[in-house]
Amino acid sequence: MKYGIVAFPSKELQDRANTYRKRYDAHYALIPPHMTVLGPFTLEGKEMKEAAAELLEVAAKQKPFELKVMRASTFAPITNAIYLKIEPNDEILGLREALSLDFIKNIEDHQYVPHITIAQKMSDGEHDDIIGQVKMDNFEHTETIDRVHLLYQLEDGPWTVYETFTLSGDE
Amino acid sequence: MKYGIVAFPSKELQDRANTYRKRYDAHYALIPPHMTVLGPFTLEGKEMKEAAAELLEVAAKQKPFELKVMRASTFAPITNAIYLKIEPNDEILGLREALSLDFIKNIEDHQYVPHITIAQKMSDGEHDDIIGQVKMDNFEHTETIDRVHLLYQLEDGPWTVYETFTLSGDE
Repeated sequence: MKYGIVAFPSKELQDRANTYRKRYDAHYALIPPHMTVLGPFTLEGKEMKEAAAELLEVAAKQKPFELKVMRASTFAPITNAIYLKIEPNDEILGLREALSLDFIKNIEDHQYVPHITIAQKMSDGEHDDIIGQVKMDNFEHTETIDRVHLLYQLEDGPWTVYETFTLSGDE
Repeated sequence: MKYGIVAFPSKELQDRANTYRKRYDAHYALIPPHMTVLGPFTLEGKEMKEAAAELLEVAAKQKPFELKVMRASTFAPITNAIYLKIEPNDEILGLREALSLDFIKNIEDHQYVPHITIAQKMSDGEHDDIIGQVKMDNFEHTETIDRVHLLYQLEDGPWTVYETFTLSGDE
């Protein structure tokens, strides 16, 4: 089973992202607008319920983090995905690090870039058509994230939330 | 803002429901397969975060419940929706009652029938075409639900999870 840990930004930012996702993101129907913190991953030698309980304990010690959207950017030419670039900070990277317990096996191995995807799986033509327009849009936005969610993927692609981890910063 | 409290059944049952929902449920893209416990509702005089904290406290005192699917049924002729009928029990009804705090204003006023929708917004013809086939399918299934989720609805329809309430039964 495939899992992920994500943050859903405020409704305001999700609504904003969805005006693009609805038209340009092939994953629009699979999950609301989100910033992946960790994943996709599988669990090794641990059931979901037990893993969730351990992750909850770790997350409770982490502090809320600032989600600062800087601008829209693109992963092209590697892949035709357009995203809202989120400024990395110590809290985001520390949270990711803390949640990377030994039973978590990451499926993809690439450098971590905090972002919210707003368009993907487009042809080169589609991508080049909209990237200029998207880049002119002003996405500057800052908010505080105080919770992340553990999700698992269904057979046909959609993601379901299993647990919510509150970042209460209890030491 | 519109809210709801729902239970997501096991991945097994969600996958099963989605084989129908993918083809016949106009809300397939808006939310994973679920049983609504309460809602849709609005909050009166209470912010989401505070409301969630109060609901969490109430839910923690509730016990896990048995979700027993009996068979497929239809809401026609009231509406062309086909659903998996869930046997009501004291835990489900008690949970719904307990979560109905005074700041929760239900938007719809109809009798509560625990169910998982698998097809909706069909024409009469479509409905009549598939109801026979669906009714012949054997959906008998029982599982234990130990958590429900507070969701809110985005502008264009999809639902996002805000908080997870564990039904730990602490008295």
